[in-house]
Amino acid sequence: MIYFDNAATTFSHDFVNPSSPHGLGFHAERALSNARGVFADILNCRKEQIIFTSGGTESNNLALIGFALAYRRQSLGIFAEPWEHPSVLEPIRFVKEQGYASAYISPFSETLPGPLLSFPEALSKKHEIQLISISHVCHETGCINDVVALAKSIKRGNPAAVVHVDGTQGFCKEPIDLTDIDMYSFSAHKCHGPSGVGGLVAKVRILPLMYGGGQENGLRPGTENVAGISAFADTAKALHHSIDANRRDAAEIKNVLKSIINELPDVFVNERGNAVSPYILNMSFLGINGETLIHLLSDNGLCASMGAACNSRKKAKPPLELMGFDHARALSAVRFSFSFLNTLEEAKAAKGIIINCVKQLRKMVGR
Amino acid sequence: MIYFDNAATTFSHDFVNPSSPHGLGFHAERALSNARGVFADILNCRKEQIIFTSGGTESNNLALIGFALAYRRQSLGIFAEPWEHPSVLEPIRFVKEQGYASAYISPFSETLPGPLLSFPEALSKKHEIQLISISHVCHETGCINDVVALAKSIKRGNPAAVVHVDGTQGFCKEPIDLTDIDMYSFSAHKCHGPSGVGGLVAKVRILPLMYGGGQENGLRPGTENVAGISAFADTAKALHHSIDANRRDAAEIKNVLKSIINELPDVFVNERGNAVSPYILNMSFLGINGETLIHLLSDNGLCASMGAACNSRKKAKPPLELMGFDHARALSAVRFSFSFLNTLEEAKAAKGIIINCVKQLRKMVGR
Repeated sequence: MIYFDNAATTFSHDFVNPSSPHGLGFHAERALSNARGVFADILNCRKEQIIFTSGGTESNNLALIGFALAYRRQSLGIFAEPWEHPSVLEPIRFVKEQGYASAYISPFSETLPGPLLSFPEALSKKHEIQLISISHVCHETGCINDVVALAKSIKRGNPAAVVHVDGTQGFCKEPIDLTDIDMYSFSAHKCHGPSGVGGLVAKVRILPLMYGGGQENGLRPGTENVAGISAFADTAKALHHSIDANRRDAAEIKNVLKSIINELPDVFVNERGNAVSPYILNMSFLGINGETLIHLLSDNGLCASMGAACNSRKKAKPPLELMGFDHARALSAVRFSFSFLNTLEEAKAAKGIIINCVKQLRKMVGR
Repeated sequence: MIYFDNAATTFSHDFVNPSSPHGLGFHAERALSNARGVFADILNCRKEQIIFTSGGTESNNLALIGFALAYRRQSLGIFAEPWEHPSVLEPIRFVKEQGYASAYISPFSETLPGPLLSFPEALSKKHEIQLISISHVCHETGCINDVVALAKSIKRGNPAAVVHVDGTQGFCKEPIDLTDIDMYSFSAHKCHGPSGVGGLVAKVRILPLMYGGGQENGLRPGTENVAGISAFADTAKALHHSIDANRRDAAEIKNVLKSIINELPDVFVNERGNAVSPYILNMSFLGINGETLIHLLSDNGLCASMGAACNSRKKAKPPLELMGFDHARALSAVRFSFSFLNTLEEAKAAKGIIINCVKQLRKMVGR
């Protein structure tokens, strides 16, 4: 095959431009369609409902701003809890500033810490259309919202309500069925897929954020990243088949680290409710600044974080405090997050590193 | 190193999340900064002026919608020629529909076919702020606009005018200096970089299209695709060093195909002016439908196209006709586009295939 369509896309060993009208273009188009089928199977939705994007952040923006653009002439209220990811909260703030919708960023449930059980009925009467955005798995604490039950209960109260689920931390880690969910964001690089690839399932009308070649049902223009999307589909398929086994492995790792509470005083696990992801462990080490601890852990060969690397509003109240944990606990919190590639040996070694670092830092502050 | 930050991004052998506060995060941040330096050197701009995106389409959208959002309270006029890429024209149409700006989509120069020499002065007086968007290399014909001279002339007439250059088809193929250019879009997959990666140079104030973690100076949120960006930087560096040699090779290939005009009647090269990219050859084969020819070429082992695979407004007048070529020529046009990976042997073989296919199709229509 002689490839003289380099202005469409330069030739790669994987795929060329799926919109190109030649044999290699058809091959790319088929690969894209196959990948779409994999995600439709995993999520129990239709292939045409899947829009491939550049990642979870774009998916959340497209869901929230795209929906607000589509319904901005009506009375629209958007609801989210204040500890959601910045890629959920910031688009909602933008939409509010633009006057497209009213925004309610506050906890759904008043009794904290506790699992999210229901959406306050009073709120749902205020607007012609309601969009509720909620994460499946909280990126800070790993707490799992029963989004399916919640969506059902919301729709019993108001059949016109629309539910968006940020599935970034749950996709291929927790089982999910989108039957009662209207929009669902997912990301590749959070589950061993390539960077720069994600998707949005949209069963409701949204408008695009970008314009151009009409790809992805006119909702996301630009030459599709076929190689990235196909690699993500392969990864997702494999992970989906081993969800249970991987969860068990992650739980074992988490338990090793969690047991630090038995060996050091003033250590707490920051969780609300009983359903928590085995992939995320958020712990507070009172008396120590979480950021300082993370740097010392890194120097000792252990990578952890304080929560979302994306957190842009550095001066805002920490998410943990918004959830109802006290200030001292929020300041001394560290998030450990696992993958099926981590081993029990790593967990045991990490436990030793953490205990030593905490002791060292507490000694320095005379605690 | 034990990696327990999988909720930020799963570990890859290349890079983790550059916003993460541990050693691997710093490593990724440094790689990103190095890549930024490569593009700043190539384009003669400052590192902070580069915003990495998911590709050329996003870059064009961010430039045009982002600028319109930033200046929508002022009298803003946006100008582009009607044969620009859909990712330029469609955002301009969106901006106009939203009432953010006035849009003038019409040829700058009245005498066609001819090179673009100046921007009509009359237009530049209509608005407080003018944004002129022009491609460096036309994706349809390969015609090169002298964007540097044009920007200079526009700014002599109106120092407040802002010039955006769509560099998608010119980046690493034609030399460019951004001294007088305010915004410049470029894409990786058009020059052998990975899919899903691009960039925008922005020296003027723009607003983001998406919101979240504040990455890329708050103009493009989401975990950066460090592996993709770094790979693109490596490719761009290598291509930039061999721009002249690659152009010569491409010109030889183009000349072989161009010589078909000497062997078949009623074959025309669709070019305006003298400066044309050696990477693109747009030819018309009168009496044949371009699309039919492309399918037959594909069946015979040659990939070509009709122009932008992204062209979404199928029912609109063909770009070639808008440029001043007649209807018969526009309908029978095929675009061949080359890369440094193509060989002279391929060109010779392709020439034979094209001649045979054209003869075969013309015979069928009794021409």
